[in-house]
Amino acid sequence: MAERVLTLQPLTAEQRVQLEKTGVEVVDAENWEAAAPITIIFGWDKKVGPAALMAPNNQVKWIQTVSAGIDYLPLDWIKAHNVQVTNASGVYSPAIAESTLGYLLYFVRGFNEAVKNQAGHFWQVPARDDLSMLASQKVVIYGTGSIGQAIAKLLNGFGNRPSGVNRSGHPVEGFVETASLANDSTLLKDADVVINAMPATSTTVHYFDESFFKQLDELNIFINVGRGKSVDQQALMNALLYQNVLHAALDVFEEEPLAKDSRLWDYPNVLVTPHQTGFAKENTKPILDIFGKNLTSWLADGSLSVNLTDVSLGY
Amino acid sequence: MAERVLTLQPLTAEQRVQLEKTGVEVVDAENWEAAAPITIIFGWDKKVGPAALMAPNNQVKWIQTVSAGIDYLPLDWIKAHNVQVTNASGVYSPAIAESTLGYLLYFVRGFNEAVKNQAGHFWQVPARDDLSMLASQKVVIYGTGSIGQAIAKLLNGFGNRPSGVNRSGHPVEGFVETASLANDSTLLKDADVVINAMPATSTTVHYFDESFFKQLDELNIFINVGRGKSVDQQALMNALLYQNVLHAALDVFEEEPLAKDSRLWDYPNVLVTPHQTGFAKENTKPILDIFGKNLTSWLADGSLSVNLTDVSLGY
Repeated sequence: MAERVLTLQPLTAEQRVQLEKTGVEVVDAENWEAAAPITIIFGWDKKVGPAALMAPNNQVKWIQTVSAGIDYLPLDWIKAHNVQVTNASGVYSPAIAESTLGYLLYFVRGFNEAVKNQAGHFWQVPARDDLSMLASQKVVIYGTGSIGQAIAKLLNGFGNRPSGVNRSGHPVEGFVETASLANDSTLLKDADVVINAMPATSTTVHYFDESFFKQLDELNIFINVGRGKSVDQQALMNALLYQNVLHAALDVFEEEPLAKDSRLWDYPNVLVTPHQTGFAKENTKPILDIFGKNLTSWLADGSLSVNLTDVSLGY
Repeated sequence: MAERVLTLQPLTAEQRVQLEKTGVEVVDAENWEAAAPITIIFGWDKKVGPAALMAPNNQVKWIQTVSAGIDYLPLDWIKAHNVQVTNASGVYSPAIAESTLGYLLYFVRGFNEAVKNQAGHFWQVPARDDLSMLASQKVVIYGTGSIGQAIAKLLNGFGNRPSGVNRSGHPVEGFVETASLANDSTLLKDADVVINAMPATSTTVHYFDESFFKQLDELNIFINVGRGKSVDQQALMNALLYQNVLHAALDVFEEEPLAKDSRLWDYPNVLVTPHQTGFAKENTKPILDIFGKNLTSWLADGSLSVNLTDVSLGY
């Protein structure tokens, strides 16, 4: 029996042909009920996904997500039914890194003021000393994995060698120095920029809390491209008011969407983006490459060769 | 007789001591009338500068500007009186290049929409394919001198190799290919981004005119960090309306300040900055380094060793 792949991710005609060449049957979201048994799911949809997965006439053994995180899947059910999950970890790091450089330049090069002045037709030239250069900002990146390394690599191109914080403090290429989470305060002393690129784990929930922000004195920029739950949002808002932090760029939030009446929207020194920092049309190909590699090994010997997650751990 | 340097540029106490160590007398703007004869001017001021230069009791032989351009000086008078002028060419290129990367990421990574949505408290997530990456934009830079090269160098760090346009089409490091101004249309065919970094010369006035823009089909981004007069502003506004150009970031304008009632301020796809792109507090040191080198050679043998301009040519 041929494998039946339910695709919950749009495919071009060409991509569909590529998949079918491997011998699998490709089933679209609207046809899943007629096409059972489904054995593989590519992508996810919060309605079709659970329905197809749990329908008794299906035999799903493997889900390939197009995301890095897998926390939105019904993990308990998946674990109980021995379904394997592969993710798209790593694919989004280059796009996240580009956005992070954009956030940095937005504040360092005076765009935040320019945008507000433009809205009022104000030709307000800053003092020559008001602006600084990214090259000379002291940057501390929390998380030295795929995302942190991609950010460090782009910073290196600006002649900027960031510091890094990770669990053990082990050295990482592209970083001038690293410290463990327990010893991060030495790196923060003369920092201009703090970037959160850590995954969501029990250690990182509200890592950036009141006591973290209170040790800062006019930090130029705080950026969160990691997880919303890593930051105590109220503590950050207080830090912005009391100038422990001067500017913030936030792509992720404790609750998403950010509430319509949240005061964060109106902070003049905050840039809010709606959890989009990893988006890029260029991601499609590397995601399909991961799926293709796994499909090849799956069809050959039932193994999944790249990005296999541990469903018990949730990543 | 000691040289008397009129400083029209603010100096720190330390910088002043450094200058005085060379044996010159340092005169502030408010004291210039009492301190004649002035022999050297550092920096410029549109009131004090001409007054001090033309006062009969002064003997100015050399002006060291803190700018790259010298077109705001009374060049006819300066030429007639054999005053030499050295400029700060090259100092601003790294800052201009950083800003240019900021403009690119602002549009490529979806910040233009995010800023507008933030003002209205709209959590409006773009489609995953709406955003693209700077790495894969095809960039054409007009002007491959100090500014163009600094931009290319930063782009290279994103894995992006831009094309360049210069007078002869000669190859330049950091650029994947170059064309002459007369043959630029081949480079424009599949361009996503055009950046103007050309100086103001008779060739470049209104180089970007109606016929230039009409050959473009949905160019993603047009950036002007060169000279305002290189762009026919009305033609650019038409191109933005007719989608020959989708977005523009403009730091320089045909008339500055940009008029309060200019329609450009309100274009939703334009970012206006008030001729600030080269500003950075980090520029002070390299400017003083140039002045210091010239002062050393001037005191030794009356020569000016770096950045001597040709007053007849105006640069």
